[in-house]
Amino acid sequence: MILSENLEKLIQSLNRFPGIGRKTAQRLAWFLVTQDKSFALQLAETITTTVESFTTCSLCNMLSESDPCPICQSDDRTDNTICVVENNSDIQIIESMNEFRGRYFVLGHLLSPIDGFGPEQINTGKLIGRINTLKPSEVILALKPSAEGEATIHFLWDLMKDKGIDLTRLSTGIPFGGDLEYSSINTLANAWKRRYTV
Amino acid sequence: MILSENLEKLIQSLNRFPGIGRKTAQRLAWFLVTQDKSFALQLAETITTTVESFTTCSLCNMLSESDPCPICQSDDRTDNTICVVENNSDIQIIESMNEFRGRYFVLGHLLSPIDGFGPEQINTGKLIGRINTLKPSEVILALKPSAEGEATIHFLWDLMKDKGIDLTRLSTGIPFGGDLEYSSINTLANAWKRRYTV
Repeated sequence: MILSENLEKLIQSLNRFPGIGRKTAQRLAWFLVTQDKSFALQLAETITTTVESFTTCSLCNMLSESDPCPICQSDDRTDNTICVVENNSDIQIIESMNEFRGRYFVLGHLLSPIDGFGPEQINTGKLIGRINTLKPSEVILALKPSAEGEATIHFLWDLMKDKGIDLTRLSTGIPFGGDLEYSSINTLANAWKRRYTV
Repeated sequence: MILSENLEKLIQSLNRFPGIGRKTAQRLAWFLVTQDKSFALQLAETITTTVESFTTCSLCNMLSESDPCPICQSDDRTDNTICVVENNSDIQIIESMNEFRGRYFVLGHLLSPIDGFGPEQINTGKLIGRINTLKPSEVILALKPSAEGEATIHFLWDLMKDKGIDLTRLSTGIPFGGDLEYSSINTLANAWKRRYTV
């Protein structure tokens, strides 16, 4: 017996989130209907407001409530450094560090020709245009150390190596608080190779 | 730099779900704003519709879109058995078994006097009233085998033992597909005690 068509629809919607299976979706749906109504209604409103207010920045591809986005607009930030990231959520974590004062560029995807993500799909042309305009002295390629991340870093390096820009990438190694024992061989080998004098 | 007040609010709302930490809430929020808009707006609408349509059944405490709920209303179900559960979500899993054709009663909570859940808070009076009306021959106490579940089962058994009703509870033991090796000592000891001839 299907208890409620609406509830079933809600469960199926929640089930579409990444990493949320059917069981978890059921738990979340029941939480919504059994908690105080105002929380659920407020959540629905917040989803609508947020999604409707978000737009893609025509300069850096970041999603925000304005175009250009607050970071491209800001006079407090320097054009001297551009940080290239894969996703919007990467910007959020880098900003939470409170360390970087330059501009961003969101690729939207890493290079992965097999999956149909070639140079055009990762906005290469737009990135080069942005670099030609801002004339930064450093471009930080803050991409994840995976096969696709490495391919993208190598591709972008090749494209920009003659521009006289300092091209940097994030350090790789054992994560802070991580155990050697639970590190992958690749991570350990990499950390070993990049060891430095204390 | 807070990228968006709305996004921050959305993350905080999602963070209130049980088992959803700040990191997961961020991932879900970004999923909502980066996927196609229509999915997010549809989800918001489904939440609103579902929550607004749900009401508590005055007979069995189940949440549904009608009062009495579809199960209390149904002529296809027998008054002969009442299944007592802790939560609404328990009904969903029992119904998915497609085995039980009786009525339900939702306690809403297990007995836990330390946390302020005494006989009144678990709707004991209402349950007894329902039993006196339906006159079932069996009451299934489908409560979880935990300290609070056992206390509730014992309390309800004591209350109903002289009513000439068959009081049953779910079998306990090693879960289907579970390894002996990973079972708790309590689970194993219980399964051992309740072993039966094959």
